[in-house]
Amino acid sequence: MITAEIKDKLIRIVSDKNFEDNMTSRLVYSYDATPNFQSLPDAIVSPRNTKEVSEVVKICNEYKIPIVPRGSGTNLCAGTCPTEGGIVLLFKLMNKILEIDEENLTITAQPGVITLDLIKAVEKKGLFYPPDPSSMKISTIGGNINENSGGLRGLKYGVTRDYVMGLEVVLANGDIIRTGGKLAKDVAGYDLTRLLVGSEGTLGIVTEAILKLIPMPETKRTMLSLYQDMEKAAQTVSKIIASKIIPTTLEFLDQPTLKVVEDFAQIGLPVDVQAVLLIEQDGPREVVERDMKKIEEICKVENAISVTVAKTQAEADALTTARRSALSALARLKPTTILEDATVPRSEIANMVKAINEISKKYNVDICTFGHAGDGNLHPTCLTDARDHEEMERVEKALEEIFQKAIELGGTITGEHGVGTMKAPYLKLKLGEAGINAMRLIKESLDPNNIMNPGKVFAKDTRKRVVVSK
Amino acid sequence: MITAEIKDKLIRIVSDKNFEDNMTSRLVYSYDATPNFQSLPDAIVSPRNTKEVSEVVKICNEYKIPIVPRGSGTNLCAGTCPTEGGIVLLFKLMNKILEIDEENLTITAQPGVITLDLIKAVEKKGLFYPPDPSSMKISTIGGNINENSGGLRGLKYGVTRDYVMGLEVVLANGDIIRTGGKLAKDVAGYDLTRLLVGSEGTLGIVTEAILKLIPMPETKRTMLSLYQDMEKAAQTVSKIIASKIIPTTLEFLDQPTLKVVEDFAQIGLPVDVQAVLLIEQDGPREVVERDMKKIEEICKVENAISVTVAKTQAEADALTTARRSALSALARLKPTTILEDATVPRSEIANMVKAINEISKKYNVDICTFGHAGDGNLHPTCLTDARDHEEMERVEKALEEIFQKAIELGGTITGEHGVGTMKAPYLKLKLGEAGINAMRLIKESLDPNNIMNPGKVFAKDTRKRVVVSK
Repeated sequence: MITAEIKDKLIRIVSDKNFEDNMTSRLVYSYDATPNFQSLPDAIVSPRNTKEVSEVVKICNEYKIPIVPRGSGTNLCAGTCPTEGGIVLLFKLMNKILEIDEENLTITAQPGVITLDLIKAVEKKGLFYPPDPSSMKISTIGGNINENSGGLRGLKYGVTRDYVMGLEVVLANGDIIRTGGKLAKDVAGYDLTRLLVGSEGTLGIVTEAILKLIPMPETKRTMLSLYQDMEKAAQTVSKIIASKIIPTTLEFLDQPTLKVVEDFAQIGLPVDVQAVLLIEQDGPREVVERDMKKIEEICKVENAISVTVAKTQAEADALTTARRSALSALARLKPTTILEDATVPRSEIANMVKAINEISKKYNVDICTFGHAGDGNLHPTCLTDARDHEEMERVEKALEEIFQKAIELGGTITGEHGVGTMKAPYLKLKLGEAGINAMRLIKESLDPNNIMNPGKVFAKDTRKRVVVSK
Repeated sequence: MITAEIKDKLIRIVSDKNFEDNMTSRLVYSYDATPNFQSLPDAIVSPRNTKEVSEVVKICNEYKIPIVPRGSGTNLCAGTCPTEGGIVLLFKLMNKILEIDEENLTITAQPGVITLDLIKAVEKKGLFYPPDPSSMKISTIGGNINENSGGLRGLKYGVTRDYVMGLEVVLANGDIIRTGGKLAKDVAGYDLTRLLVGSEGTLGIVTEAILKLIPMPETKRTMLSLYQDMEKAAQTVSKIIASKIIPTTLEFLDQPTLKVVEDFAQIGLPVDVQAVLLIEQDGPREVVERDMKKIEEICKVENAISVTVAKTQAEADALTTARRSALSALARLKPTTILEDATVPRSEIANMVKAINEISKKYNVDICTFGHAGDGNLHPTCLTDARDHEEMERVEKALEEIFQKAIELGGTITGEHGVGTMKAPYLKLKLGEAGINAMRLIKESLDPNNIMNPGKVFAKDTRKRVVVSK
């Protein structure tokens, strides 16, 4: 509860304008992109600089008020849903690119910078920031760091974690620390940078980041390969990697997803095939040409019924954009869209897709599957209706079985969406009691009053989707 | 102290053969590659599997006996010196490569595998494990993971941390946990994998690792560029990167180092120049040729007095081997060789080398400098005599000033050697009280009895090199 006294203290820090506790604002920030999770915050506080963040945190620590740091709230794990009330710490005013350093190939940015704005800013200098979550048009860099976001270019270039070189972080006690730096090598102490990346705001609040850039690849080619046999598509993925080619992007869409995406994007995608691979390679011109030729051969050997290389950049962009629109396209069909991200070693992609189809039939639920095949990172997407409790119970059972299958195949319950509130009950499947216990010890040591995004990552009870949030 | 009762318990776990407490063995494991640090362990225990490690740890936790995990002891920060006695946990029997997975591009290995053996094993399959610390002929993978070892290929390929995908770890309470997996993407919980990498055995004991492999680059070329002006060499480094070329290797040697290396390796290196850059590029043939041509142009614009590309692989190997032998070559000159690894953003290389030269003069100590210029990771190497306490005091002052300068330039006190016992007193320069406090909270939460490599990372007192170890 935020008393009049606390409210007064917070306003004195951020100014009247940047403190909101009217019902409209509280409702706006009561949910994020995750379906079926909603909980009112007590207030929304928008700090203007790191010092203000530190002062706000100190107040919250003193009065044990939960803090939920938030960029654009595009996460899919209810990671920014204020499940235990408290304040939403909004980064809309800390949204500046502070520096692009062309000699050290780094960009320094505040957490509120929109991902795509950052990507475009470095591209102007001939530089490249590879992590490209599907939400990049609206997601923020701070959100990407908290969730360790992935994207379509992860196969070749890795994920957000691989590009975070240094952080400024406010800890639960209000301490401001700096980790890492513009340093290709740094082993001075524990790797707090990477411990914080993906910790979903539960260990500290990121107030600034130094990100690694790489030179912009010279050229890029895009290819579409069609299959009547899902397993052949999956085998193509394995064979490409086994032939020592690492494409930038190796995306998979099953037939139901294809249909919906074509209906939405209208770019002439085939809708009568069982599976599609969208393959991109970038790099020096000669190498890209050579790789694309080899990939085409592999696709044909694996019985692709058609392999086409995009002739123009516009055509290539249309294909990628269509793939990126998969979630939006699927979301139009049913009142509730649950996008999951069970992930397996890439050699197990075919087994996983097969299992998802069987589970979907077993529980009679509608699941479309697409995703980053090269990473083994699939997005089985359930089209349902949260108001239909009977169906939701089947959905939950189906998803739990999908997670169990992923673990059985050497995979994980979440490849890029995070744990948040939604996946917390399943985390034990991956880490076991001992693993979760180790994490909990770290959490309690850095945040003894549990004010940092409480209710996330660590399961409080067995609540999944059906039970209504308190 | 290991009582007869504890000894008996340990022997029951690992067998009589794998428990040593005779004075000869204790002396052998009383030091590592770090000069001037020595301290006797009470016993050396060589477990045969993870279960035995867990059982040994439980005993140690019960009786509060320090555990120092050890591979080959090649570290340069006194990270495996048993400063507080206890047992050295030796991994000589856990030295197997368990699997090379060509479909998922991973290798699974026990900690005792020699780095070069692992590199050679994957090369046979056309695969590549890039981290190549200079000690790789004798260092172990477990040691590399504990120290987050770097090497000569870090500029393009990163360091050990970037290749560790998953770990099996025994925690201080004896729990065996598994982190990560053969997964390109995994955000299920905190990134314990990377928290553990580089934590020098202070948070847990690595008993197995899944490492990432990449396809073997098609070809490699090696170039030597000579300068009469150190600053021009440093400018070359910056210009190569700014021209969007990332070479595999970009090494720098100053004149004193050159002389010593040539004297040792006898391969016809010039000894009358001020600085040398050893530059390697690998990748597809066309790209390597193109990059080497551009790099040559840059070197010439920066007044290199000679640029030569190695004509044969043997010639190239001779150059790299000579560079790798720098420490051994320097170590022949004086009784004590102190190899440091102050690291700065690469744009500050010229300033840093200049500062090292000035500091060396100021304190009248002998410092040769070489290192990974592309990473900003320099190795100022002090040739001295530990028995000469007056000189050692000047050495300490000089090194402390070098660390301060590195921090001032946005750098760090250690790029790849680790903190261990030796750098602990300097860690505050980089992390501040708040940063060290955050680390200490994590350490205490996971290892409340402080049995995991105690005395490392966290400074106990202000002891540096002069004061004799207790």
